[in-house]
Amino acid sequence: MKKIVTLGEVMLRLSPPANQRFIQAKSLDLEFGGSEANVGATLAFWGQDVVHVTAFPEHELGWSASASLRRIGIDTRYIQFSPGRLGVYFLENAAAHRSSQIIYDRADSAFANLNPDVLDWDEILGDAAWLHWSGITPALSANCAEITRKALRKANEKGVRVSGDLNYRSNLWKYGKGPDQIMPELMDLTQVMIAGVRDFNQCLNQSFEDFDSVRDFAFTNFPKLTHLVKTDRESINTSHNRMSAGIYTSTDQYFSKNYDLIPIVDRVGTGDAFAGGLIYGLLHSSEQEAVELGMAACALKHSVPGDLLLSSLEEVQELAQGNSIGKIKR
Amino acid sequence: MKKIVTLGEVMLRLSPPANQRFIQAKSLDLEFGGSEANVGATLAFWGQDVVHVTAFPEHELGWSASASLRRIGIDTRYIQFSPGRLGVYFLENAAAHRSSQIIYDRADSAFANLNPDVLDWDEILGDAAWLHWSGITPALSANCAEITRKALRKANEKGVRVSGDLNYRSNLWKYGKGPDQIMPELMDLTQVMIAGVRDFNQCLNQSFEDFDSVRDFAFTNFPKLTHLVKTDRESINTSHNRMSAGIYTSTDQYFSKNYDLIPIVDRVGTGDAFAGGLIYGLLHSSEQEAVELGMAACALKHSVPGDLLLSSLEEVQELAQGNSIGKIKR
Amino acid sequence: MKKIVTLGEVMLRLSPPANQRFIQAKSLDLEFGGSEANVGATLAFWGQDVVHVTAFPEHELGWSASASLRRIGIDTRYIQFSPGRLGVYFLENAAAHRSSQIIYDRADSAFANLNPDVLDWDEILGDAAWLHWSGITPALSANCAEITRKALRKANEKGVRVSGDLNYRSNLWKYGKGPDQIMPELMDLTQVMIAGVRDFNQCLNQSFEDFDSVRDFAFTNFPKLTHLVKTDRESINTSHNRMSAGIYTSTDQYFSKNYDLIPIVDRVGTGDAFAGGLIYGLLHSSEQEAVELGMAACALKHSVPGDLLLSSLEEVQELAQGNSIGKIKR
Amino acid sequence: MKKIVTLGEVMLRLSPPANQRFIQAKSLDLEFGGSEANVGATLAFWGQDVVHVTAFPEHELGWSASASLRRIGIDTRYIQFSPGRLGVYFLENAAAHRSSQIIYDRADSAFANLNPDVLDWDEILGDAAWLHWSGITPALSANCAEITRKALRKANEKGVRVSGDLNYRSNLWKYGKGPDQIMPELMDLTQVMIAGVRDFNQCLNQSFEDFDSVRDFAFTNFPKLTHLVKTDRESINTSHNRMSAGIYTSTDQYFSKNYDLIPIVDRVGTGDAFAGGLIYGLLHSSEQEAVELGMAACALKHSVPGDLLLSSLEEVQELAQGNSIGKIKR
Amino acid sequence: MKKIVTLGEVMLRLSPPANQRFIQAKSLDLEFGGSEANVGATLAFWGQDVVHVTAFPEHELGWSASASLRRIGIDTRYIQFSPGRLGVYFLENAAAHRSSQIIYDRADSAFANLNPDVLDWDEILGDAAWLHWSGITPALSANCAEITRKALRKANEKGVRVSGDLNYRSNLWKYGKGPDQIMPELMDLTQVMIAGVRDFNQCLNQSFEDFDSVRDFAFTNFPKLTHLVKTDRESINTSHNRMSAGIYTSTDQYFSKNYDLIPIVDRVGTGDAFAGGLIYGLLHSSEQEAVELGMAACALKHSVPGDLLLSSLEEVQELAQGNSIGKIKR
Amino acid sequence: MKKIVTLGEVMLRLSPPANQRFIQAKSLDLEFGGSEANVGATLAFWGQDVVHVTAFPEHELGWSASASLRRIGIDTRYIQFSPGRLGVYFLENAAAHRSSQIIYDRADSAFANLNPDVLDWDEILGDAAWLHWSGITPALSANCAEITRKALRKANEKGVRVSGDLNYRSNLWKYGKGPDQIMPELMDLTQVMIAGVRDFNQCLNQSFEDFDSVRDFAFTNFPKLTHLVKTDRESINTSHNRMSAGIYTSTDQYFSKNYDLIPIVDRVGTGDAFAGGLIYGLLHSSEQEAVELGMAACALKHSVPGDLLLSSLEEVQELAQGNSIGKIKR
Repeated sequence: MKKIVTLGEVMLRLSPPANQRFIQAKSLDLEFGGSEANVGATLAFWGQDVVHVTAFPEHELGWSASASLRRIGIDTRYIQFSPGRLGVYFLENAAAHRSSQIIYDRADSAFANLNPDVLDWDEILGDAAWLHWSGITPALSANCAEITRKALRKANEKGVRVSGDLNYRSNLWKYGKGPDQIMPELMDLTQVMIAGVRDFNQCLNQSFEDFDSVRDFAFTNFPKLTHLVKTDRESINTSHNRMSAGIYTSTDQYFSKNYDLIPIVDRVGTGDAFAGGLIYGLLHSSEQEAVELGMAACALKHSVPGDLLLSSLEEVQELAQGNSIGKIKR
Repeated sequence: MKKIVTLGEVMLRLSPPANQRFIQAKSLDLEFGGSEANVGATLAFWGQDVVHVTAFPEHELGWSASASLRRIGIDTRYIQFSPGRLGVYFLENAAAHRSSQIIYDRADSAFANLNPDVLDWDEILGDAAWLHWSGITPALSANCAEITRKALRKANEKGVRVSGDLNYRSNLWKYGKGPDQIMPELMDLTQVMIAGVRDFNQCLNQSFEDFDSVRDFAFTNFPKLTHLVKTDRESINTSHNRMSAGIYTSTDQYFSKNYDLIPIVDRVGTGDAFAGGLIYGLLHSSEQEAVELGMAACALKHSVPGDLLLSSLEEVQELAQGNSIGKIKR
Repeated sequence: MKKIVTLGEVMLRLSPPANQRFIQAKSLDLEFGGSEANVGATLAFWGQDVVHVTAFPEHELGWSASASLRRIGIDTRYIQFSPGRLGVYFLENAAAHRSSQIIYDRADSAFANLNPDVLDWDEILGDAAWLHWSGITPALSANCAEITRKALRKANEKGVRVSGDLNYRSNLWKYGKGPDQIMPELMDLTQVMIAGVRDFNQCLNQSFEDFDSVRDFAFTNFPKLTHLVKTDRESINTSHNRMSAGIYTSTDQYFSKNYDLIPIVDRVGTGDAFAGGLIYGLLHSSEQEAVELGMAACALKHSVPGDLLLSSLEEVQELAQGNSIGKIKR
Repeated sequence: MKKIVTLGEVMLRLSPPANQRFIQAKSLDLEFGGSEANVGATLAFWGQDVVHVTAFPEHELGWSASASLRRIGIDTRYIQFSPGRLGVYFLENAAAHRSSQIIYDRADSAFANLNPDVLDWDEILGDAAWLHWSGITPALSANCAEITRKALRKANEKGVRVSGDLNYRSNLWKYGKGPDQIMPELMDLTQVMIAGVRDFNQCLNQSFEDFDSVRDFAFTNFPKLTHLVKTDRESINTSHNRMSAGIYTSTDQYFSKNYDLIPIVDRVGTGDAFAGGLIYGLLHSSEQEAVELGMAACALKHSVPGDLLLSSLEEVQELAQGNSIGKIKR
Repeated sequence: MKKIVTLGEVMLRLSPPANQRFIQAKSLDLEFGGSEANVGATLAFWGQDVVHVTAFPEHELGWSASASLRRIGIDTRYIQFSPGRLGVYFLENAAAHRSSQIIYDRADSAFANLNPDVLDWDEILGDAAWLHWSGITPALSANCAEITRKALRKANEKGVRVSGDLNYRSNLWKYGKGPDQIMPELMDLTQVMIAGVRDFNQCLNQSFEDFDSVRDFAFTNFPKLTHLVKTDRESINTSHNRMSAGIYTSTDQYFSKNYDLIPIVDRVGTGDAFAGGLIYGLLHSSEQEAVELGMAACALKHSVPGDLLLSSLEEVQELAQGNSIGKIKR
Repeated sequence: MKKIVTLGEVMLRLSPPANQRFIQAKSLDLEFGGSEANVGATLAFWGQDVVHVTAFPEHELGWSASASLRRIGIDTRYIQFSPGRLGVYFLENAAAHRSSQIIYDRADSAFANLNPDVLDWDEILGDAAWLHWSGITPALSANCAEITRKALRKANEKGVRVSGDLNYRSNLWKYGKGPDQIMPELMDLTQVMIAGVRDFNQCLNQSFEDFDSVRDFAFTNFPKLTHLVKTDRESINTSHNRMSAGIYTSTDQYFSKNYDLIPIVDRVGTGDAFAGGLIYGLLHSSEQEAVELGMAACALKHSVPGDLLLSSLEEVQELAQGNSIGKIKR
């Protein structure tokens, strides 16, 4: 089986239990997560051969972060232990009319500081079928932008398919470059792009007004692009969303079923679960199945606490087929 | 007050806290439960004189299981401490689009191994008004089928009313007999039968297509049958169900109100809460009140974590009457 | 900044975790709360200068109660440490068709026993802009009724605005006086009154049939009254309510948006959050903004466990303006 | 088997987890305990037929208290549900140089308020072999003193053996009588008395200087006395004590082994575990075995969190015989 | 680096939190452990290339068990998912005069049922330097005895060093064979044997009276034996032990320092930590360092909750050298 | 009452529960602490008027840190909300032979970044009797060194007494200055100095061999020095230490009792508890009482989880006098 490579920061996630506010917390639930590793975890849990590339500090919490990936079945051999902090994000998981909040504390992490030269992409991507990146990584530091660039160039050179989740974050991009200076090249090297109108506008410094214009632009300007993918979310409140997704090629479009998500247990990582299902579907099946699998994985993730989906492929396929929702499995 | 006798296995229930998946659990919530003892617990909590008959291994967890029944007010004097394991069931209590899962680990339990000769049903049923059994017991082992047969025969001989919840479980019946070899005799000895179309088809190796046919067949072929009882559940998702129930005699039918159950805290034991309310109603009141009491108990149980209803009779009656739902009681 | 004074008992709140029933609890979550201090906490959290007046026993739990107020920013200098118990309330926080329950154990508390002469209202109300009381206090004991009377008289004398939440509780008023012997004088000394039809009927021994009659009566009979305020709550079940609020002057009325509250995390203290928002609005803005701010605070409180709102002013204003409900804030 | 009757208040015990101080607690561990019921629990756990007499308020926490006794195997049929509070005690369980603290909040409890006339001691003591009381009960209220007096008189009349643990508590005796007005009669009706020099001095308003004087006085002045029993505790610190015990008859004395208790998990209820072992030994064996069994039960209790011993008879006997201490039992 | 292979059952470990008794538990702490995998975990945590061989049932808890090994860095590629249960052990972790207890519930596990033919030892042991087994495995079932025999024969054939911890357990050996029918051949194939006098007597049906006789017999009768290893433990109580260890060759002996272990946090797995340190020392260093490293690992494990050591090599070496015990590392 | 001013960083403390290792943690206990604020907390808890000066980021966790100080009674009016992170320290609280570990993650904190010009020491120290600082602050950043220098100069100018705990930390001092460039001036401005031989050697780049030389040097070279204070700790293991303390003037010396500390619950903050007791004693009593109070506070802190002493003055005085250690207080 050819391997899937994911690249990105993994942070310590600290979150008050139940629906407590930060200011009420006497303890914080601990786990580790990061957008791209979350994608890899979905795929590794489904038996795919996944390698994650990141960096951690050389102390017990860094080891613990690495162990958390290995536990899910991710190959951690290319993880670097190098100078810098362990990035942290504090999550207040809310409900109903209260919005969830994230306090990021990720500056100066081992990953943000990572020297691009220590990663041998020729080796890492040897025998790989797929590389997944997100727009968070080039937003972290010049080093991380360079790491992404090197990875994508090598992947294109070797014929490894590349998916990217643009995932624009306004509170990043603090190192002197704007997204429009970095992202266009990376987008050009990406075959499967997950993005909405806002992502395109921010990354390209454009002002598209609807997704149709984005789609026209994208397939015209990024000749390697094969699939443009978008999820739509309607927020009734923090505990109640409605979602669906679509895959667009230059000629066709494929839509998932609609999901009425209530109650939402944990929204973080739902887009990553989608991306995991999408990649699995595109690797092993059709666009229609890919969008259904992605959206079912996304829907299921809303019911699982933490960053990771942790659902078997069978469980996701069963939901994608709409069978026996809500029955007790014995 | 004449006593109510319940017969069946009680297991150790182990469940990840909150909505965690099994694979996330660092601890498991512990309690004890089993379908027939859950029915007995509802009735004992309402002041009825309830005796439960089962078996446990002679070690601290077996004592603890027995203590958990005694705590609720169940008379434990006929519980046997005998060779075999304590049956265990692992429950992943899910939400929204994720289905709850049960991993049973109950083979070779003290109850499944119990020698039918050690139970003196003449004594146990002395002064009893009611005996409740379920289709789980004869499915466990030849010994358990024989225990059920002896209990039902003696009950009929002594004029003790018998209720049975057919509760067909496909993952049981592993000891060489099929349900159609065992269940017909037991059904014939039962006056109040809780069952749906699928239960009848599996237990009698039939293929009824609707409940009307089941009802005709049942009142024709089981002359001792006085009440056929059925609950209907529509599953929107794991956290949202709709339910109602009906009692059928050979000539009449009685329906409960409809309940819109959201959010569901714990679905396990809701059918047992129904049966408890039903038996109470049939013992002390009319069919109409029995079906309302059963369904109100069932609805309330959806909001209580664990196997047991733990609601007072007054609380259930108040819901059955539809008063002041959702007000804080001070 | 002129200060806001709140007066009332603060109790130890003990509550089974998650949705457990009392009888399932192996531990109880601990915090401190009381209607008027909850109002003060909302205002102190928003940077107002708040002084709370109450009494605690002189032991570690009394100190802890006092510390819990100081933590939120409330000035505790006038809190008395005096003979009597710490009032306790046990709360079973339920869901769906199960009603939440409160067992009060507050008799003979340090506050109920407090000698009215130890409080120097001239000093306490010096430099104050607002005094808030509720109908719970005069219901506790003759001492507490006298304390309230003294506070309100002095406030009116000094030109401090007075708000009162009538909040009639039938399980109080055990000390030999009825509400109609005490409340009329206190209502007459109150400029901003939060009350519904039932409160008026109980406090004045009347039988108004609708709010219009109450409003007519109130503005006719209580000449100092400037604002009559009412919240309306429809209870679908314990986890699902609908709410809105209105402010009435003798000539005008101002209504909030409607809120569909689901799922409800904790309903206790939601009226107090409303009062906090209301007072802030009346002090700093218009009636229309006051009713929206109060109702947004109230809605948000339904999503926060415990007695206190613990939401920033910005967070409440954002909800009052209806922006981006349910988005993750990063 | 003849039954053992125990009489006394059972309180809600609320305790910060681990070694937290009260002021750190975000939750309190909950259980129920009281000196005499703790004695009964030891005996019921060892298969004795134990009846406990007390009173609880008629609400969920009162039912829960009663259920906690029934769980251990105590017969709860004579427990009264009557007006008054549930007594509470808050325990801070400390370590090393920090002393543990108890805040009692037990005034006005259902038991303290209990009408002596509702208890029919002729029936309760019918078929009883033993009655156990403690000096806490007559210290609670005039009613409780009268209840104890009636129980002891009837026991002596019927030939039921009486044991009493004098257990003088200076923070009780608030109802207008001193111990010297009440205790002498009760002591005179007691055959087995657990007491030290201080207890005798306080209860009789004497000033004995050593235990020998106490012993002489006791056997001279209380002609029914058969056994005077004393435990000796040396406190190195909160986590480290040394203990031994002695039984004295008018002619003989029997001493236990010495125990070096470190680390102490929970000291509360250790004297009650002793009394349970003592009574079992005196009922079924010799004085020497009684003092060893009592002291072994006491030592074991120091390692068990909560009020109750919860050790099997075999476990206690094994320790009393000094075998294989500290080995893992498989 | 040549790999180390460990063979043996891994169970679900369920344990009441803190020092609770089983009968007090409302939840059980969950992890996975087994003697030989614990040894492997120590070595994998120290960067050794470790492969563990076992079997699990194909369900979420089986996956979770496997994930727990992978997390520590153990290679799980040879783990079988096959019919049978997941073995469970319930551990009551006690203190002071109370002994810890284990309730085993491991019969009929996937590992006990494993078909010896599915393991290809030629492949598994390819490139291996060491194989570790224990006397628990051949005691589980005839299949497991056969698996052990095949593994040891192949290891000897391939020149892989074999260590075995005899670890006699009287509550196993239920499948019709006694240890003296199985163990002699396995011992004969083992170069490094961890055993005491009792193990030798039980496994060989002998009655040696002291270790010197055992040593003479062992080196005479098992010609492949290079190292006989023994730990000595003195149990003051459950929380306080004293320990040391010795390695014996046919000509020499090497002793560790003595350790005074107080307070003991968790004794389970301490022998496995010893074996891990021992194997590391024998592979990489001298006998003297091996016995010190093993004993330091063993001492440290007494302070770590759970089955696993989870200490770095540096941490263990530092203790072995006796530096700065008890200082805070910053 | 004249106030006491403390200056220093307050961090988020995150610690695995019970004795778990970092790598085992599924949640982390949360509180806030820092050496100088811990000193202030002891004094505020004893009713002293304490002002703490520090800086936090402007987000919920920064507010929570500030609230945690206000809760204890510390005046937080001079706390700055300014750019930078919230410093974090991760603590693994160990036992027996395992050493506790701290992972600091405090670089770039709001306090380290604080502009010295925003603090008006003339105002802050107005009406102050005492200023306490520690060697941690000047080690954090050039800004912090400058803040300390300004505070100490102004204190000396205004006649405010200054105490300093040298507390040399080798893992700080990363901003380009060594302690010998900064500390001599600060020491020269300090009247009460807590320090040992190693602190002096590191801060002054000296190589004193014993404390007598240090003392001679100190009183000769720092003419304002009135008291040199030292604690001595012997580490048997992590759970067992022995301690005593001494105060030295130029002419006299005062020693505390010796304490045998076992078991240790939490060692962090014990030196700060000592300093708090010392300052209280020097402000209100004699040197002899100061050293006893400091050492008793220090001993007690070893039994309290977290950074803070949280013991009343009475409790500490009682231990200092050696009365009734280990008795339950009722």
